[in-house]
Amino acid sequence: MPNFSLLPKEGKFFQLFEESAQNAVDIAQKLRELLYAWDNVEDRVAVIADLEHKGDNITHQIATELHRTFVTPFDREDITALAHSLDDVVDFIHSAADFMMLYRVEQPTMRARELADVIIEITLEMQKAVGQLKKHIDQRQMLKHCVEINRMENVADRIFRSALAELFASSTEVPILIKWREIYEYMENVTDRCEDVADVLEGVALKYS
Amino acid sequence: MPNFSLLPKEGKFFQLFEESAQNAVDIAQKLRELLYAWDNVEDRVAVIADLEHKGDNITHQIATELHRTFVTPFDREDITALAHSLDDVVDFIHSAADFMMLYRVEQPTMRARELADVIIEITLEMQKAVGQLKKHIDQRQMLKHCVEINRMENVADRIFRSALAELFASSTEVPILIKWREIYEYMENVTDRCEDVADVLEGVALKYS
Amino acid sequence: MPNFSLLPKEGKFFQLFEESAQNAVDIAQKLRELLYAWDNVEDRVAVIADLEHKGDNITHQIATELHRTFVTPFDREDITALAHSLDDVVDFIHSAADFMMLYRVEQPTMRARELADVIIEITLEMQKAVGQLKKHIDQRQMLKHCVEINRMENVADRIFRSALAELFASSTEVPILIKWREIYEYMENVTDRCEDVADVLEGVALKYS
Repeated sequence: MPNFSLLPKEGKFFQLFEESAQNAVDIAQKLRELLYAWDNVEDRVAVIADLEHKGDNITHQIATELHRTFVTPFDREDITALAHSLDDVVDFIHSAADFMMLYRVEQPTMRARELADVIIEITLEMQKAVGQLKKHIDQRQMLKHCVEINRMENVADRIFRSALAELFASSTEVPILIKWREIYEYMENVTDRCEDVADVLEGVALKYS
Repeated sequence: MPNFSLLPKEGKFFQLFEESAQNAVDIAQKLRELLYAWDNVEDRVAVIADLEHKGDNITHQIATELHRTFVTPFDREDITALAHSLDDVVDFIHSAADFMMLYRVEQPTMRARELADVIIEITLEMQKAVGQLKKHIDQRQMLKHCVEINRMENVADRIFRSALAELFASSTEVPILIKWREIYEYMENVTDRCEDVADVLEGVALKYS
Repeated sequence: MPNFSLLPKEGKFFQLFEESAQNAVDIAQKLRELLYAWDNVEDRVAVIADLEHKGDNITHQIATELHRTFVTPFDREDITALAHSLDDVVDFIHSAADFMMLYRVEQPTMRARELADVIIEITLEMQKAVGQLKKHIDQRQMLKHCVEINRMENVADRIFRSALAELFASSTEVPILIKWREIYEYMENVTDRCEDVADVLEGVALKYS
């Protein structure tokens, strides 16, 4: 990769963001597997916790790189915002899984599985958008991915609101209601943070393309 | 408007912020009407959802304008922060109304109506403060509006805390308790976001007057 | 203090941040005393509310100083972020105490006391880190404090998750469960905001040492 040696610092940032986006896709897939299989819950959640730590490390590497780099490929505050939003995506996926275990949930709901499906889709789209970060950004292509992320966040929001309404309409026991309300909230927050990622990427595309 | 043609970009930002503040006042009035009338709930919430979309469009126009404008009337990060805080005000008003519908609330509480009254007052004050944004800001006038917004946020906070204490002190059924706790939280968050708007405006006034 | 007269503005910022950190330690100690004594609750919470107002004043002084100072000892956005994060630490401690009173909690739980202990430790460590802010920052020393703050935040997070799991596993009445879930959340948020403080300080140390 000849560009890499000419622009070592730029290459490093792009590479770390791609690692971070890949990690978000990986942890989303582990969440989905947990929800559909619902066996060996503790082992599966331990794997998810490991991916969350991996995400922390990548975020920390980006911060360290940023503090030591004078000329950055795009604005410092965009780099920080992007790194933190990607990290939040991973943190909320971990929290959703962790609370399902902590609360000894008996069986995932259909709505939780629907949300996990959307989370896979949205993290894959986010990965494509992050992959567009390079010296010359194709603005049209980047905006297409961002629009798609926004669309999926709306889908997740509608599932979330339906899930809550159903929870309260059914004769569910109250502690179950409280537990699922919280788990759904973590899952919906995942897609909000993906939207934050898209907002930063859209801004970067408009400024640098 | 001769200034407008001489300073087209500045004029455009001030105009979009005024539209955004007007939209916050409009949606606040629709929330208050919903809470006092409590009829045709679905239709009323649909109107509120439309205003929320209108707000998204204004925010998007500000972002697009910002990315295409080289010299802005005040700091780029203040423009972004102001646009997002105004958008959050509108989003939380929509969420409060939407969850009252989703949760099939039987009757709004007195405390919810009190909060809706404060939300009208605070959005009107916020509109006055946003209206002070212009080439030469009257610092004293701007600070007066900001102090008033902070005072109203404190009033809302006290109503919120009293409402929660009463909810738990009364023999209310638990699902009702959980629903109202959430709705009150959205309403109180509206005033927190108005305070964020005031913080940005205060900073702008101190820097540019 | 000869430096102080030569660099009056720098000295002013460092002094205000030290006051803010000291105030966080003071309010943390009042929270811990409240939880261990659990007598004269209203009087004790009134003292905590006074410290919260004191924190607001310090934050406001930092903002005013910032808007009137042209050359700041470190980046304006870091000063703002640091002031707000320190203020949030104090606000969440106040909210935890206030809701214990409002919800007429009968007796603090062991887990709440454990969290209060961690909150003392983490605010003391944060105070040491803030004390490192000066013209020439000892980067190694600053990072040591930040690592320690992160470690304590992880401890608080584990206590929080255990506390919630126990709450749902026990046959606790549901309103008690909801109240404690909320109080624990405020307490855990205190340590998250301390981590925000550490993040800013780490960035400042890497940039200016």
